[in-house]
Amino acid sequence: MAKPLPLLTNPAPERRDAARNREALMSAATALVAEVGVRGVTMDALACRAGVGKGTVFRRFGSREGLMAALLNHSETEWQAAVMGGPPPLGPGAPPLERLLAFGESRMLLNLRHAELIEAAGNPGARSVAAVSFTTMHVRYLLGQLRVEGDLGYLATALIAPLEIIVLREQVEPGSAPIDRLVAGWSDLTRRVVGMT
Amino acid sequence: MAKPLPLLTNPAPERRDAARNREALMSAATALVAEVGVRGVTMDALACRAGVGKGTVFRRFGSREGLMAALLNHSETEWQAAVMGGPPPLGPGAPPLERLLAFGESRMLLNLRHAELIEAAGNPGARSVAAVSFTTMHVRYLLGQLRVEGDLGYLATALIAPLEIIVLREQVEPGSAPIDRLVAGWSDLTRRVVGMT
Repeated sequence: MAKPLPLLTNPAPERRDAARNREALMSAATALVAEVGVRGVTMDALACRAGVGKGTVFRRFGSREGLMAALLNHSETEWQAAVMGGPPPLGPGAPPLERLLAFGESRMLLNLRHAELIEAAGNPGARSVAAVSFTTMHVRYLLGQLRVEGDLGYLATALIAPLEIIVLREQVEPGSAPIDRLVAGWSDLTRRVVGMT
Repeated sequence: MAKPLPLLTNPAPERRDAARNREALMSAATALVAEVGVRGVTMDALACRAGVGKGTVFRRFGSREGLMAALLNHSETEWQAAVMGGPPPLGPGAPPLERLLAFGESRMLLNLRHAELIEAAGNPGARSVAAVSFTTMHVRYLLGQLRVEGDLGYLATALIAPLEIIVLREQVEPGSAPIDRLVAGWSDLTRRVVGMT
Protein backbone atom coordinates (compact mmCIF):
# COMPACT_ATOMS: atom_id res chain seq x y z
CA MET A 1 0.00 0.00 0.00
CA ALA A 2 1.26 3.47 -0.84
CA LYS A 3 1.97 5.92 1.95
CA PRO A 4 -0.51 8.75 2.41
CA LEU A 5 0.63 12.01 0.88
CA PRO A 6 0.45 14.49 3.75
CA LEU A 7 0.84 17.53 1.56
CA LEU A 8 -2.25 16.64 -0.39
CA THR A 9 -4.52 15.88 2.55
CA ASN A 10 -4.73 19.41 3.85
CA PRO A 11 -3.07 21.82 1.46
CA ALA A 12 -5.27 24.89 1.85
CA PRO A 13 -3.94 26.40 5.09
CA GLU A 14 -0.33 26.08 3.94
CA ARG A 15 -1.07 27.70 0.61
CA ARG A 16 -2.93 30.53 2.27
CA ASP A 17 0.03 31.07 4.58
CA ALA A 18 2.41 31.06 1.65
CA ALA A 19 0.29 33.63 -0.16
CA ARG A 20 0.17 35.80 2.95
CA ASN A 21 3.94 35.56 3.40
CA ARG A 22 4.48 36.42 -0.22
CA GLU A 23 2.14 39.39 0.01
CA ALA A 24 3.90 40.62 3.18
CA LEU A 25 7.28 40.35 1.48
CA MET A 26 6.04 42.19 -1.62
CA SER A 27 4.58 45.00 0.51
CA ALA A 28 7.82 45.33 2.45
CA ALA A 29 9.82 45.34 -0.79
CA THR A 30 7.54 47.94 -2.39
CA ALA A 31 7.82 50.19 0.67
CA LEU A 32 11.59 49.73 0.67
CA VAL A 33 11.87 50.76 -3.00
CA ALA A 34 9.80 53.87 -2.27
CA GLU A 35 12.11 54.80 0.61
CA VAL A 36 15.59 53.99 -0.59
CA GLY A 37 15.20 53.45 -4.36
CA VAL A 38 15.82 50.30 -6.38
CA ARG A 39 19.59 50.44 -5.84
CA GLY A 40 19.23 50.49 -2.08
CA VAL A 41 17.13 47.31 -1.96
CA THR A 42 19.19 44.29 -0.89
CA MET A 43 18.08 40.83 0.21
CA ASP A 44 19.37 41.65 3.72
CA ALA A 45 17.45 44.91 3.93
CA LEU A 46 14.27 43.17 2.79
CA ALA A 47 14.66 40.32 5.31
CA CYS A 48 15.22 42.86 8.07
CA ARG A 49 12.27 45.01 7.00
CA ALA A 50 9.89 42.06 6.67
CA GLY A 51 11.09 40.48 9.93
CA VAL A 52 12.05 37.16 8.33
CA GLY A 53 15.34 35.34 7.87
CA LYS A 54 17.55 36.05 4.89
CA GLY A 55 17.13 32.37 3.93
CA THR A 56 13.37 32.87 3.55
CA VAL A 57 13.93 35.78 1.17
CA PHE A 58 16.37 33.76 -0.93
CA ARG A 59 14.07 30.70 -0.96
CA ARG A 60 11.23 32.89 -2.16
CA PHE A 61 12.99 34.90 -4.87
CA GLY A 62 16.15 32.95 -5.66
CA SER A 63 18.26 36.07 -6.09
CA ARG A 64 18.10 39.84 -6.04
CA GLU A 65 17.27 39.68 -9.75
CA GLY A 66 14.39 37.33 -8.97
CA LEU A 67 13.12 39.78 -6.35
CA MET A 68 13.22 42.61 -8.91
CA ALA A 69 11.33 40.49 -11.44
CA ALA A 70 8.69 39.73 -8.78
CA LEU A 71 8.38 43.43 -7.91
CA LEU A 72 7.96 44.28 -11.58
CA ASN A 73 5.24 41.69 -11.98
CA HIS A 74 3.48 42.87 -8.81
CA SER A 75 3.54 46.51 -9.90
CA GLU A 76 2.31 45.68 -13.42
CA THR A 77 -0.57 43.61 -12.00
CA GLU A 78 -1.61 46.39 -9.60
CA TRP A 79 -1.53 48.96 -12.43
CA GLN A 80 -3.66 46.76 -14.70
CA ALA A 81 -6.17 46.33 -11.86
CA ALA A 82 -6.33 50.13 -11.50
CA VAL A 83 -7.01 50.48 -15.25
CA MET A 84 -9.72 47.81 -15.21
CA GLY A 85 -11.48 48.67 -11.96
CA GLY A 86 -9.81 51.60 -10.19
CA PRO A 87 -11.15 55.13 -9.83
CA PRO A 88 -11.68 57.32 -12.96
CA PRO A 89 -10.27 58.81 -15.09
CA LEU A 90 -7.78 55.91 -15.36
CA GLY A 91 -10.46 53.41 -14.38
CA PRO A 92 -14.01 53.12 -15.77
CA GLY A 93 -16.49 55.97 -15.41
CA ALA A 94 -14.78 58.86 -17.21
CA PRO A 95 -15.43 59.74 -20.90
CA PRO A 96 -13.19 57.70 -23.24
CA LEU A 97 -10.87 60.57 -24.29
CA GLU A 98 -10.23 61.44 -20.64
CA ARG A 99 -9.54 57.79 -19.90
CA LEU A 100 -7.16 57.57 -22.86
CA LEU A 101 -5.21 60.67 -21.80
CA ALA A 102 -5.06 59.41 -18.20
CA PHE A 103 -3.83 56.06 -19.50
CA GLY A 104 -0.99 57.70 -21.46
CA GLU A 105 0.31 59.76 -18.55
CA SER A 106 -0.02 56.90 -16.10
CA ARG A 107 1.70 54.36 -18.38
CA MET A 108 4.54 56.78 -19.14
CA LEU A 109 5.25 57.30 -15.43
CA LEU A 110 4.92 53.55 -14.78
CA ASN A 111 7.40 52.72 -17.57
CA LEU A 112 9.90 55.24 -16.21
CA ARG A 113 9.58 53.71 -12.71
CA HIS A 114 9.84 50.20 -14.14
CA ALA A 115 12.98 50.98 -16.14
CA GLU A 116 15.20 50.64 -13.06
CA LEU A 117 13.47 47.44 -11.96
CA ILE A 118 13.85 45.92 -15.43
CA GLU A 119 17.55 46.68 -15.39
CA ALA A 120 17.93 45.34 -11.85
CA ALA A 121 16.06 42.20 -12.94
CA GLY A 122 18.96 41.64 -15.36
CA ASN A 123 16.90 42.17 -18.46
CA PRO A 124 17.67 45.66 -19.74
CA GLY A 125 15.93 45.46 -23.10
CA ALA A 126 12.94 43.51 -21.89
CA ARG A 127 9.44 44.29 -22.90
CA SER A 128 6.72 42.21 -21.38
CA VAL A 129 4.55 40.68 -24.10
CA ALA A 130 1.66 40.39 -21.62
CA ALA A 131 1.95 44.08 -20.71
CA VAL A 132 2.07 45.09 -24.39
CA SER A 133 -1.01 43.06 -25.25
CA PHE A 134 -2.94 44.44 -22.26
CA THR A 135 -2.13 48.06 -23.12
CA THR A 136 -2.83 47.52 -26.83
CA MET A 137 -6.20 45.93 -26.08
CA HIS A 138 -7.15 48.75 -23.72
CA VAL A 139 -6.21 51.56 -26.14
CA ARG A 140 -7.97 49.75 -28.96
CA TYR A 141 -11.11 49.48 -26.83
CA LEU A 142 -11.03 53.20 -26.02
CA LEU A 143 -10.47 54.12 -29.71
CA GLY A 144 -13.56 52.05 -30.49
CA GLN A 145 -15.52 53.90 -27.80
CA LEU A 146 -14.37 57.15 -29.42
CA ARG A 147 -15.77 55.91 -32.76
CA VAL A 148 -12.38 56.25 -34.45
CA GLU A 149 -12.40 54.53 -37.83
CA GLY A 150 -9.50 52.70 -39.41
CA ASP A 151 -6.98 50.06 -38.38
CA LEU A 152 -7.51 50.42 -34.63
CA GLY A 153 -4.98 47.71 -33.83
CA TYR A 154 -2.26 49.60 -35.69
CA LEU A 155 -3.27 52.97 -34.21
CA ALA A 156 -3.22 51.47 -30.69
CA THR A 157 0.28 50.08 -31.26
CA ALA A 158 1.43 53.42 -32.66
CA LEU A 159 0.09 55.32 -29.63
CA ILE A 160 1.79 52.93 -27.21
CA ALA A 161 5.16 52.91 -28.99
CA PRO A 162 6.30 56.39 -27.84
CA LEU A 163 5.52 55.40 -24.23
CA GLU A 164 8.09 52.59 -24.38
CA ILE A 165 11.08 53.03 -22.15
CA ILE A 166 13.52 52.59 -25.04
CA VAL A 167 12.00 55.71 -26.61
CA LEU A 168 11.41 57.63 -23.36
CA ARG A 169 14.97 57.08 -22.18
CA GLU A 170 16.40 59.10 -25.05
CA GLN A 171 14.00 61.92 -24.35
CA VAL A 172 14.42 61.94 -20.58
CA GLU A 173 18.02 60.95 -19.89
CA PRO A 174 19.90 63.71 -21.67
CA GLY A 175 17.94 65.95 -19.29
CA SER A 176 16.32 67.59 -22.29
CA ALA A 177 12.60 67.03 -21.88
CA PRO A 178 10.74 67.40 -18.59
CA ILE A 179 7.96 64.86 -18.07
CA ASP A 180 5.32 67.58 -18.48
CA ARG A 181 6.46 68.15 -22.06
CA LEU A 182 6.24 64.42 -22.84
CA VAL A 183 2.76 64.18 -21.31
CA ALA A 184 1.60 67.24 -23.27
CA GLY A 185 3.19 65.87 -26.45
CA TRP A 186 1.47 62.51 -26.10
CA SER A 187 -1.89 64.19 -25.40
CA ASP A 188 -1.52 66.28 -28.54
CA LEU A 189 -0.55 63.20 -30.57
CA THR A 190 -3.58 61.31 -29.24
CA ARG A 191 -6.01 64.15 -29.96
CA ARG A 192 -4.72 64.27 -33.54
CA VAL A 193 -5.12 60.51 -33.98
CA VAL A 194 -8.60 60.59 -32.46
CA GLY A 195 -9.55 63.67 -34.48
CA MET A 196 -10.42 65.81 -31.44
CA THR A 197 -7.88 68.63 -31.51
CA MET B 1 68.25 62.87 -35.01
CA ALA B 2 64.93 61.04 -35.12
CA LYS B 3 64.30 58.45 -37.79
CA PRO B 4 61.97 59.50 -40.62
CA LEU B 5 58.43 58.19 -40.17
CA PRO B 6 57.73 56.34 -43.42
CA LEU B 7 54.00 56.08 -42.79
CA LEU B 8 53.68 59.83 -42.58
CA THR B 9 55.80 60.71 -45.61
CA ASN B 10 53.49 59.23 -48.19
CA PRO B 11 50.26 58.14 -46.56
CA ALA B 12 47.74 58.94 -49.28
CA PRO B 13 48.21 55.96 -51.65
CA GLU B 14 48.05 53.45 -48.80
CA ARG B 15 44.95 54.99 -47.38
CA ARG B 16 43.31 55.06 -50.76
CA ASP B 17 44.17 51.38 -51.21
CA ALA B 18 42.78 50.58 -47.80
CA ALA B 19 39.57 52.41 -48.58
CA ARG B 20 39.27 50.57 -51.89
CA ASN B 21 39.86 47.23 -50.20
CA ARG B 22 37.33 48.03 -47.56
CA GLU B 23 34.77 49.09 -50.16
CA ALA B 24 35.38 45.89 -52.16
CA LEU B 25 34.89 43.79 -49.03
CA MET B 26 31.69 45.65 -48.10
CA SER B 27 30.29 45.20 -51.63
CA ALA B 28 31.10 41.49 -51.56
CA ALA B 29 29.52 41.17 -48.09
CA THR B 30 26.39 43.08 -49.14
CA ALA B 31 25.99 40.89 -52.24
CA LEU B 32 26.51 37.78 -50.11
CA VAL B 33 23.79 38.82 -47.65
CA ALA B 34 21.41 39.42 -50.55
CA GLU B 35 22.11 35.94 -51.94
CA VAL B 36 22.35 33.68 -48.90
CA GLY B 37 20.91 35.78 -46.06
CA VAL B 38 22.65 37.01 -42.90
CA ARG B 39 22.91 33.50 -41.44
CA GLY B 40 24.76 32.17 -44.48
CA VAL B 41 27.49 34.83 -44.30
CA THR B 42 30.71 33.46 -42.80
CA MET B 43 34.21 34.91 -42.75
CA ASP B 44 35.30 32.07 -45.07
CA ALA B 45 32.53 32.72 -47.57
CA LEU B 46 33.35 36.43 -47.62
CA ALA B 47 37.08 35.83 -48.13
CA CYS B 48 36.28 33.45 -50.98
CA ARG B 49 33.81 35.85 -52.57
CA ALA B 50 36.11 38.87 -52.30
CA GLY B 51 39.15 36.89 -53.50
CA VAL B 52 41.24 37.67 -50.41
CA GLY B 53 42.70 35.54 -47.64
CA LYS B 54 40.67 34.72 -44.54
CA GLY B 55 43.36 36.54 -42.53
CA THR B 56 42.60 39.77 -44.37
CA VAL B 57 38.92 39.49 -43.49
CA PHE B 58 39.71 38.86 -39.82
CA ARG B 59 42.24 41.71 -39.69
CA ARG B 60 39.66 44.05 -41.18
CA PHE B 61 36.62 43.14 -39.07
CA GLY B 62 38.03 41.29 -36.05
CA SER B 63 35.18 38.79 -35.94
CA ARG B 64 31.93 37.84 -37.64
CA GLU B 65 30.18 40.20 -35.20
CA GLY B 66 32.52 42.98 -36.29
CA LEU B 67 31.66 42.28 -39.92
CA MET B 68 27.94 42.48 -39.13
CA ALA B 69 28.44 45.79 -37.31
CA ALA B 70 30.35 47.14 -40.34
CA LEU B 71 27.57 45.98 -42.69
CA LEU B 72 24.98 47.68 -40.50
CA ASN B 73 26.92 50.91 -40.50
CA HIS B 74 27.45 50.74 -44.28
CA SER B 75 23.76 50.14 -44.96
CA GLU B 76 22.65 52.93 -42.60
CA THR B 77 25.05 55.38 -44.26
CA GLU B 78 23.84 54.47 -47.76
CA TRP B 79 20.20 54.87 -46.68
CA GLN B 80 20.86 58.30 -45.14
CA ALA B 81 22.58 59.37 -48.37
CA ALA B 82 19.48 58.28 -50.32
CA VAL B 83 17.25 60.36 -48.01
CA MET B 84 19.47 63.43 -48.29
CA GLY B 85 20.31 63.31 -51.98
CA GLY B 86 18.77 60.28 -53.69
CA PRO B 87 15.86 60.30 -56.14
CA PRO B 88 12.38 61.43 -54.99
CA PRO B 89 10.05 60.69 -53.30
CA LEU B 90 12.51 59.50 -50.59
CA GLY B 91 15.05 62.11 -51.64
CA PRO B 92 14.47 65.83 -52.31
CA GLY B 93 12.10 66.97 -55.04
CA ALA B 94 8.76 65.45 -54.02
CA PRO B 95 6.11 67.33 -51.97
CA PRO B 96 6.77 66.99 -48.21
CA LEU B 97 3.84 64.62 -47.46
CA GLU B 98 4.97 62.27 -50.24
CA ARG B 99 8.51 62.39 -48.89
CA LEU B 100 7.28 61.68 -45.37
CA LEU B 101 5.22 58.67 -46.47
CA ALA B 102 8.15 57.38 -48.56
CA PHE B 103 10.41 57.83 -45.54
CA GLY B 104 8.09 55.74 -43.32
CA GLU B 105 7.86 52.81 -45.70
CA SER B 106 11.56 52.87 -46.50
CA ARG B 107 12.64 53.10 -42.85
CA MET B 108 10.27 50.28 -41.85
CA LEU B 109 11.74 47.96 -44.49
CA LEU B 110 15.28 49.01 -43.57
CA ASN B 111 14.67 48.32 -39.86
CA LEU B 112 13.28 44.87 -40.68
CA ARG B 113 16.36 44.10 -42.80
CA HIS B 114 18.66 45.48 -40.11
CA ALA B 115 17.08 43.42 -37.34
CA GLU B 116 19.00 40.30 -38.36
CA LEU B 117 22.25 42.22 -38.74
CA ILE B 118 21.82 43.82 -35.30
CA GLU B 119 21.31 40.40 -33.75
CA ALA B 120 24.27 38.94 -35.67
CA ALA B 121 26.36 41.89 -34.47
CA GLY B 122 25.73 40.61 -30.94
CA ASN B 123 23.63 43.56 -29.88
CA PRO B 124 20.00 42.42 -29.97
CA GLY B 125 18.40 45.41 -28.25
CA ALA B 126 20.60 48.01 -29.89
CA ARG B 127 19.30 51.24 -31.26
CA SER B 128 21.76 53.52 -32.91
CA VAL B 129 21.62 56.97 -31.34
CA ALA B 130 23.03 58.49 -34.55
CA ALA B 131 20.31 56.81 -36.64
CA VAL B 132 17.59 57.97 -34.25
CA SER B 133 18.78 61.56 -34.33
CA PHE B 134 19.04 61.56 -38.13
CA THR B 135 15.51 60.19 -38.59
CA THR B 136 14.08 62.53 -35.93
CA MET B 137 15.71 65.56 -37.55
CA HIS B 138 14.45 64.56 -40.98
CA VAL B 139 10.83 63.99 -39.88
CA ARG B 140 10.90 67.21 -37.88
CA TYR B 141 12.10 69.07 -40.98
CA LEU B 142 9.28 67.60 -43.12
CA LEU B 143 6.66 68.40 -40.45
CA GLY B 144 7.92 72.00 -40.56
CA GLN B 145 7.64 72.00 -44.36
CA LEU B 146 4.05 70.77 -43.93
CA ARG B 147 3.37 73.75 -41.61
CA VAL B 148 2.35 71.44 -38.77
CA GLU B 149 2.10 73.38 -35.52
CA GLY B 150 2.98 72.08 -32.06
CA ASP B 151 5.87 70.24 -30.47
CA LEU B 152 7.45 69.01 -33.70
CA GLY B 153 10.28 67.26 -31.85
CA TYR B 154 7.80 65.18 -29.88
CA LEU B 155 5.63 64.44 -32.91
CA ALA B 156 8.70 63.34 -34.90
CA THR B 157 9.73 60.97 -32.10
CA ALA B 158 6.19 59.62 -31.88
CA LEU B 159 6.06 58.94 -35.64
CA ILE B 160 9.40 57.16 -35.58
CA ALA B 161 8.63 55.01 -32.52
CA PRO B 162 6.26 52.55 -34.28
CA LEU B 163 8.93 51.99 -36.95
CA GLU B 164 11.36 50.65 -34.35
CA ILE B 165 12.24 47.01 -34.68
CA ILE B 166 11.23 46.26 -31.08
CA VAL B 167 7.69 47.32 -32.00
CA LEU B 168 7.66 45.91 -35.55
CA ARG B 169 8.88 42.52 -34.39
CA GLU B 170 5.73 41.92 -32.36
CA GLN B 171 3.58 42.88 -35.31
CA VAL B 172 5.48 40.91 -37.92
CA GLU B 173 6.83 37.82 -36.21
CA PRO B 174 3.64 36.16 -35.08
CA GLY B 175 2.83 36.22 -38.80
CA SER B 176 -0.18 38.39 -38.06
CA ALA B 177 0.39 41.57 -40.01
CA PRO B 178 1.67 41.67 -43.59
CA ILE B 179 4.02 44.58 -44.33
CA ASP B 180 1.37 46.23 -46.51
CA ARG B 181 -0.90 46.60 -43.49
CA LEU B 182 1.89 48.19 -41.44
CA VAL B 183 2.76 50.60 -44.25
CA ALA B 184 -0.92 51.55 -44.66
CA GLY B 185 -1.30 51.92 -40.87
CA TRP B 186 1.72 54.22 -40.62
CA SER B 187 0.51 56.33 -43.54
CA ASP B 188 -2.89 56.74 -41.88
CA LEU B 189 -1.23 57.65 -38.57
CA THR B 190 0.96 60.23 -40.31
CA ARG B 191 -1.95 61.80 -42.20
CA ARG B 192 -3.84 62.17 -38.92
CA VAL B 193 -0.83 63.78 -37.21
CA VAL B 194 -0.26 66.12 -40.14
CA GLY B 195 -3.96 66.91 -40.42
CA MET B 196 -4.29 65.76 -44.04
CA THR B 197 -6.67 62.79 -43.86
